[in-house]
Amino acid sequence: MNASADKALHRWGFDDTEFIIHDDRSVELTGSRYEICGARMPAFIPFVESSLGVRVELSDLRLPQRRVAPEARRNAAFCAAVAAEFEEGKYSFDAEQRLSHSHGQATADEIYAVLYTALPRVVDMVFFCATERDAERIVALASEHQVCLVPYGGGTNVTGCLQPPEDDRMVVSVDTGRMNRIEWLNPLNRQVCAQAGITGRELEQQLERQGFTTGHEPDSIEFSTLGGWISTNASGMKRNRYGAIENIVDSVTVVTPKGKLDTLGQFPRQSAGVQVKDVLFGSEGNFGLITKAVLRIRPLPEVRTYQSLVFPDARRGVAFLFELSNSSILPASIRLVDNGQFRFGLALKPASGKRAQLKTLLQKVVLRGVKRIDPKQMVVATIGMEGTSMEVRAQEAALAEIAARYQGFFAGGSNGRRGYNLTFAIAYIRDFMTKFQILGETLETTLPWDKIHDVVEAVKTETQHIHRECALPGRPFLSYRVTQLYASGACVYFTYAVSMKGMKDPGPIASKAEDRLRHTIVRNGGAVSNHHGIGKFRSQLLASVMPPMNAEMIRSVKATIDPSNVFGAQNGVFLRGFGRPRSEASSAE
Amino acid sequence: MNASADKALHRWGFDDTEFIIHDDRSVELTGSRYEICGARMPAFIPFVESSLGVRVELSDLRLPQRRVAPEARRNAAFCAAVAAEFEEGKYSFDAEQRLSHSHGQATADEIYAVLYTALPRVVDMVFFCATERDAERIVALASEHQVCLVPYGGGTNVTGCLQPPEDDRMVVSVDTGRMNRIEWLNPLNRQVCAQAGITGRELEQQLERQGFTTGHEPDSIEFSTLGGWISTNASGMKRNRYGAIENIVDSVTVVTPKGKLDTLGQFPRQSAGVQVKDVLFGSEGNFGLITKAVLRIRPLPEVRTYQSLVFPDARRGVAFLFELSNSSILPASIRLVDNGQFRFGLALKPASGKRAQLKTLLQKVVLRGVKRIDPKQMVVATIGMEGTSMEVRAQEAALAEIAARYQGFFAGGSNGRRGYNLTFAIAYIRDFMTKFQILGETLETTLPWDKIHDVVEAVKTETQHIHRECALPGRPFLSYRVTQLYASGACVYFTYAVSMKGMKDPGPIASKAEDRLRHTIVRNGGAVSNHHGIGKFRSQLLASVMPPMNAEMIRSVKATIDPSNVFGAQNGVFLRGFGRPRSEASSAE
Repeated sequence: MNASADKALHRWGFDDTEFIIHDDRSVELTGSRYEICGARMPAFIPFVESSLGVRVELSDLRLPQRRVAPEARRNAAFCAAVAAEFEEGKYSFDAEQRLSHSHGQATADEIYAVLYTALPRVVDMVFFCATERDAERIVALASEHQVCLVPYGGGTNVTGCLQPPEDDRMVVSVDTGRMNRIEWLNPLNRQVCAQAGITGRELEQQLERQGFTTGHEPDSIEFSTLGGWISTNASGMKRNRYGAIENIVDSVTVVTPKGKLDTLGQFPRQSAGVQVKDVLFGSEGNFGLITKAVLRIRPLPEVRTYQSLVFPDARRGVAFLFELSNSSILPASIRLVDNGQFRFGLALKPASGKRAQLKTLLQKVVLRGVKRIDPKQMVVATIGMEGTSMEVRAQEAALAEIAARYQGFFAGGSNGRRGYNLTFAIAYIRDFMTKFQILGETLETTLPWDKIHDVVEAVKTETQHIHRECALPGRPFLSYRVTQLYASGACVYFTYAVSMKGMKDPGPIASKAEDRLRHTIVRNGGAVSNHHGIGKFRSQLLASVMPPMNAEMIRSVKATIDPSNVFGAQNGVFLRGFGRPRSEASSAE
Repeated sequence: MNASADKALHRWGFDDTEFIIHDDRSVELTGSRYEICGARMPAFIPFVESSLGVRVELSDLRLPQRRVAPEARRNAAFCAAVAAEFEEGKYSFDAEQRLSHSHGQATADEIYAVLYTALPRVVDMVFFCATERDAERIVALASEHQVCLVPYGGGTNVTGCLQPPEDDRMVVSVDTGRMNRIEWLNPLNRQVCAQAGITGRELEQQLERQGFTTGHEPDSIEFSTLGGWISTNASGMKRNRYGAIENIVDSVTVVTPKGKLDTLGQFPRQSAGVQVKDVLFGSEGNFGLITKAVLRIRPLPEVRTYQSLVFPDARRGVAFLFELSNSSILPASIRLVDNGQFRFGLALKPASGKRAQLKTLLQKVVLRGVKRIDPKQMVVATIGMEGTSMEVRAQEAALAEIAARYQGFFAGGSNGRRGYNLTFAIAYIRDFMTKFQILGETLETTLPWDKIHDVVEAVKTETQHIHRECALPGRPFLSYRVTQLYASGACVYFTYAVSMKGMKDPGPIASKAEDRLRHTIVRNGGAVSNHHGIGKFRSQLLASVMPPMNAEMIRSVKATIDPSNVFGAQNGVFLRGFGRPRSEASSAE
């Protein structure tokens, strides 16, 4: 069937990997895919309890309900044409397939909904596109029969962009997972042409065998796809060294209702008038089906190593990043986690023996005594370095020199590696907590340097307001990390979690809370999103800050290549009623 | 009058600076603005003679003719409205002003034409826009009265984008030179908001006083403007450290016939759907009048220093750059000049005393004997390094380590500095040579790494063909430098010069030759342009490689913001007849 046969249904990740709880209330990540797999972690539940001010009982655990999909809407002529043209395995009306292609990974609106309540809408058919010819044909048939197409990559987005649109037409999810080949690789030009449905994992594994990497490493790399990265305008953890997706892609091919669209040449840079390539980043499935792209690749680094840095508090940590962001000698990845996320990481340490406890104790002495560090205030930067041995040495030296000015000191590579790799386990924890009616979500933004602390405070305050107003149990958890550095700002990534124990309808409450927090961020000077995108959930938020002419300009581009709105996913400025007041928008057209 | 009162009329540069020839046939750059000013350079004319195979006599020197402009076409209602609304100094019908606003700096089609023959068309009025309010009013009046506006920045482009369009309407050049203020500077966010008409020189001088720089340093920095950089999608010599213009601009404001267009927020990065900002880079005056932009700034570097590297031949030099392009520790600027440009640089050394001659002799020994370098094959990289002292040390160490693998060795900082600064004198030499009917032009492109040597050979061969076919005197001069490094390619910059001594109509011959060479580059796998843009002169070339749907998409953007084509400069895809066969295009609409 689908290329990602090892993928879990609906929830995040691999089918063989999930957090479980033991009778002694220790937790464990099953399988063997990650460093933390297979060890009992006794500190986690206590950490959750103390953070959220609620008890977590085994008896609270609720298993997902049986999911049902509504009857598929079938456009008879289109279905007949598809059946005549394609073999059976190319398309499906199966309920589970349709359900799993109707959502991304947003917690409240999607994962909680599909597992515990219901999705508002479900696609009517899934088409498994395997070739560019398939793409051209399905687009032609959809055009002919007035069917709506929604491109599907890895299903990892958190913006609702896969949520089927309100549309009277039959809606077909076009799964690109079978377009997962490398078409060519040119080592002399450091370029690879890959099909759009290839996942980051597939791409990197194949490149690695030939000694290359793209260096694009979003947290979702195991499942998200090349086409998805372009549509979402994605960025990855190693952007410092390799760039974000717009710096990695040299050209894109898109099948649109008006024909195949190729961007101009396969060059790393051109000044050739307005670049069509640039309007494909962030197009979120509204323009056509991305079928392949040419990417820059880089030789595998000679050295890959990790480090971590401890700072006395967030102000000094951020000031360090501000200075570091001016350096040209940067580690591939550096992420500063606040005290809450640092303690979250500690809570995921396995049950430790005597010797390990002693070491921790010693560390405590060092932290408290010698360096006068308050464990309740300290923050940690996890660092991934790549390059020649000379580059990595220079990176470490630059870090040390700058960190010293902010009372920062190295805390070792194993802490750094662990912090870096923990990223891949976070979403599993999200799914685990959801079973206890603890809902967590991430909110990411770009912030000007001088607004970071204010926005953090504003978001913290708002979580308290929400908590009181909604009379939620316990207290909210809010932590953040600074994950990307730019000259004029940084990407800040909040994690918000709250217990909904005993609440009647947790999904909508959490969804509304999240929305309020996002508005708080934007109102206080943050960007709508750094790299997650708009989709449907942030469309109103975008409308609140976007000049109307901008939306018109973007719509005019679409009018040229998709005049009858075959790609009617309605994301971003294409959401029905975009820019109109909410009351008006909901009753519109 | 104009903000650049010290600017020379028509020809390149400052009014007080030009190359002159003495009776002993030594040349000298007047004034004191540049390092090479004020010294007699006896080797230059002999170098030109041996390179081009022609004699250069003082008697060949031809001074420009008196220029005349055709009568201005006046839209009476518009002129009356302008006179009613603006004070007298805000606009001009003066012939010299109109002429100087009707061309850029392309040699054959513009500079040779304006100085020795005639421009095909001349704008009818020059409007000196000083404020955003001025901009809004002139655009409103032009809309109302069907007048065509052509934005004017520094007039340094080489694409014909200032050439007045074939248009029945009155054509007004909107000079932005008086919009040259910094509106605000935020040191905490490292951002500056500057008006679009500010020149690079003005901007950097003001920033420097506050301890900052944008780091954007195109060869034209003394005269080109912020608005011009965005319109042209420009790039500068120090891109490695500071990025090209699209990496420096956080937001743009444009006055369009449909109102003021602001891009979304002032963030270094967003994933907020399709970004309107991205379609302004390379818009070449077709969309509106850029009035200001927010730029990222960086603290002035602690250290600025130069270096140079010698390689035995071009193959090793390029192989060195290929490896270096994978390093994250790059000098701010590195440019590899071929043997021809190296010798060109030597020819501009001042008459030297005994001691200097001895040193040169010693160098020769070193080059020939110890290192076994052939002076006829060797190539040189000029390097500009910036950063903290640690960064600069690391840059030099990385260069040394990689260069050693390609038999490269350091040849000193003074050679590097000289090579770097010579850039700013090149265009003066162009103007000097033009007086001797020696026409030179640059052709820049982005090349995939594996095509650099092939394209160089193809262009060399084509210059020979052209020379024979046109029966030109002597032989052509062709040299190149590699000026920008990317993972998947490099920017290559050709310099082509040819003597037209005795030819009847040099302009069109040189123009056609240049066009043939550009087609040769593109046919062999090069980009239409790396950073100079399309304008009018490369519009047909662009059409030869651009899929028609791309042009349609770009036109649809314009239709939203300028439906009645007020900004009718007709650059790039907007040139009348774009994409149609030449014969058809010239007689079209």
